Amino acid sequence: MQLLEERIRRDGLIRDGGVLKVDSFLNHQMDVGFFVEMAKEFERLFHNCGVNKILTIEASGIGVACITAQYFGCPVVFAKKNKTLNIAGDVWTSKVESFTHGRVYDIIVSKDYLTEKDRVLIIDDFLANGAALQGLIELCRQAGAQVIGAGICIEKAFQPGGDRIRSMGVRVESLARIKSMSVESGVEFC
Amino acid sequence: MQLLEERIRRDGLIRDGGVLKVDSFLNHQMDVGFFVEMAKEFERLFHNCGVNKILTIEASGIGVACITAQYFGCPVVFAKKNKTLNIAGDVWTSKVESFTHGRVYDIIVSKDYLTEKDRVLIIDDFLANGAALQGLIELCRQAGAQVIGAGICIEKAFQPGGDRIRSMGVRVESLARIKSMSVESGVEFC
Repeated sequence: MQLLEERIRRDGLIRDGGVLKVDSFLNHQMDVGFFVEMAKEFERLFHNCGVNKILTIEASGIGVACITAQYFGCPVVFAKKNKTLNIAGDVWTSKVESFTHGRVYDIIVSKDYLTEKDRVLIIDDFLANGAALQGLIELCRQAGAQVIGAGICIEKAFQPGGDRIRSMGVRVESLARIKSMSVESGVEFC
Repeated sequence: MQLLEERIRRDGLIRDGGVLKVDSFLNHQMDVGFFVEMAKEFERLFHNCGVNKILTIEASGIGVACITAQYFGCPVVFAKKNKTLNIAGDVWTSKVESFTHGRVYDIIVSKDYLTEKDRVLIIDDFLANGAALQGLIELCRQAGAQVIGAGICIEKAFQPGGDRIRSMGVRVESLARIKSMSVESGVEFC
C-alpha cells in the first residue's frame, strides 16, 4: 500500500537494533483518518470472505481493528495479555513471547466471544517474529474458529514471522513489507 | 443515552462486589456499530469545543476513542500503562491506582504527542473511582494542554470518581450513569 510506505518513509524513525518507531501515527498517537484508508484496503483484500469477527491483541492493534470492523460490519474481540479479575469463567489461552518486553505472557479470550461459528480476520499493527500472531491463531484453533487470514499494517519481512505463518497455510496480507532497514540507509520495501 | 442504558440492562451482568460485566459489547468483545452511536453522542455533546486531540488509556478505552475521533477529525493518543522499550525520550507520567488489579502503575504519554497546543477530549469506557481519569488530567496539566472535558461511556455514580473530577472544574459527560446496582435488583440509572 503505497500510502503507508510513503508515511513510513516520512514519519518512521529507525533506531538501532531493528526498531522502527511509528508512534506518531500508528501505535501511540493514532491517525484515525489514515486508519480509515488502511481499513478500506483490508476490506478490499478480504472482501467476500465471510468475515464475521475481527480478532486483535491489546493494546496497539485495537484502534486499527475497530476502524476496520466498520467496513466488515462485525464486532472486534481483543485478546488480553493478563488475566484480570473482571474476566470470569472459561477462557482460551496461549503463551506469547514478547521480544519488545523480553518476557513470556499469557494471552486470553473469553470462550463466549470466540467460537466455532466465527470466521476470523486477525488484525494487528506489526508482524515481526510472529509470536503474537501465532498466539492468536492458536486461540482460534482452540475455539474451532476458522481463520480467514491476517491483515497486518507493517511486516518486517526480514524477520521470520511472516514466512513461518504463511507456511502454516494462513493467508497473511501486509500493507507494507519492509525488506531491510538501517539507520544509515533508511527503509527498503519488498 | 437511552440506547446504552437499554444495552446495559439487556447484556450487562452484575457480579458481587460492584462489578458490572459489559464485556460482550464494550470492553472485550466490542460492538463497533454500537460504538458509532456513542461516538455521535459524544460529538453532539462536545460539538464546537475546538477539540483537536482525543486522549484515552490502554486498553479498553482505545476502541471507543478511535471511533469517536472520526467524528472530531482528530488523532487519538493513548496513555500506556508501562514504559516499553519502544518509547524513547521524554514522557509525561502520572501514577494511577487500579482497584480492579489491586496495584499502582505509571501511565505515560510521549511529550511529542501531548503539548500546550492540544485541546483534549478524554474518552474512556468506565468511570468509577476516577483514578485513571485523574491520571489522564494530570498528564494534560503537565503538558499545558487544555482539558475540554471527559466523555465516559458508563459512570458508576455511586462511586466517588465522577463527583470528585467535576468538583475540580472538569466537564464530565457520561452516557449512562448508574445510581445503584445489585445482583438482586439489577441496575438503576440516575
